[in-house]
Amino acid sequence: MVAASELMIERNSLEISLSDLAQKSGVNAALVKYHFGNKEGLLLALLERDAASEVANLEYLLDQPMSATEKLKLHIAGIINAYYRFPYLNRLIHLLLHESDAKAANEVSRFFIKPLFEFQRRLLEEGVASAEFRKVDPVMFYTSLIGSCDHLFHGRNAMARAIGVGDVTDDVRRKYIDHMTAMVLGGMVKPVSKAPKIVKA
Amino acid sequence: MVAASELMIERNSLEISLSDLAQKSGVNAALVKYHFGNKEGLLLALLERDAASEVANLEYLLDQPMSATEKLKLHIAGIINAYYRFPYLNRLIHLLLHESDAKAANEVSRFFIKPLFEFQRRLLEEGVASAEFRKVDPVMFYTSLIGSCDHLFHGRNAMARAIGVGDVTDDVRRKYIDHMTAMVLGGMVKPVSKAPKIVKA
Repeated sequence: MVAASELMIERNSLEISLSDLAQKSGVNAALVKYHFGNKEGLLLALLERDAASEVANLEYLLDQPMSATEKLKLHIAGIINAYYRFPYLNRLIHLLLHESDAKAANEVSRFFIKPLFEFQRRLLEEGVASAEFRKVDPVMFYTSLIGSCDHLFHGRNAMARAIGVGDVTDDVRRKYIDHMTAMVLGGMVKPVSKAPKIVKA
Repeated sequence: MVAASELMIERNSLEISLSDLAQKSGVNAALVKYHFGNKEGLLLALLERDAASEVANLEYLLDQPMSATEKLKLHIAGIINAYYRFPYLNRLIHLLLHESDAKAANEVSRFFIKPLFEFQRRLLEEGVASAEFRKVDPVMFYTSLIGSCDHLFHGRNAMARAIGVGDVTDDVRRKYIDHMTAMVLGGMVKPVSKAPKIVKA
């Protein structure tokens, strides 16, 4: 799994063969097949490994003694950073959800989407209880937040063609975290100026 | 193209064959091939037709005598409604962008993504000039808004598996427009109450 992860990051592609993998890991291809069934089984196991550590982070975050607003900020950064750290994560999720058999899609839903949604649902409840957030439908919230974070990576290729934007660099990653945090918390309406009005005598 | 559009809506799938199409349209398959080259050429022509009417709407919207905020609200509803009206639009864009030859991807970028981005860039400028919006990077704005709208349709299948949500009905469409409008304009921080404080005597 370590070799598969490294290969996909090196090549920036999911296209790795069992023989590449055997060469990189020093484990023979037959053993990889024996253990994971096929390449898809390996990719699913890899995604499960990455998802498990992310889900553990969510549980930890929810228990911290901080405001719901602070947790939400960390969560937004956490999603974008996870996609950034594992550039194949996004494409792998889409591949397993859309192009594979129902079993893989069910697995991804179970170990990735459901815990993420449950975390957000509880965080939103917490924020409403503490009067920090207005009441928002958790399904709609999940859809809009994950869609936005996902599209930085999923839609970049198309935007590169259309308007010449470059890769998602570390700088882009940081700016997108700032953008998403500001949008989710405050939207884009310009705050009303708090400066005192100058009244002519 | 009308027959292709109707078939894809009826079947809720891009999987239509040239012979289905010939039967539905009364035009023989060889003529479809002659005119569009192949099925992908037909899908591209169809997307271009739908995109052209959407882009014309954008131009029209920008020229209306209304505030940038009102235009942004109509734009958000317009994106979600376009995806809803043409349920195949979203999958078609993804298919042509990700699974096809570079020529199709370039075409989709040129007639769909670029005009949409240019519209948003000008609308954001207008809103900043009129002091309605704070300054937002247009590339980041495009990414987050399109990602959110896209995910209602693109991510629904996965969410259905994970948390049992149903199809995108007319009611879901309307609620998502309200959700996205509120999020984009004001985010989720609870507005500070304007009720006067009760001061004990």
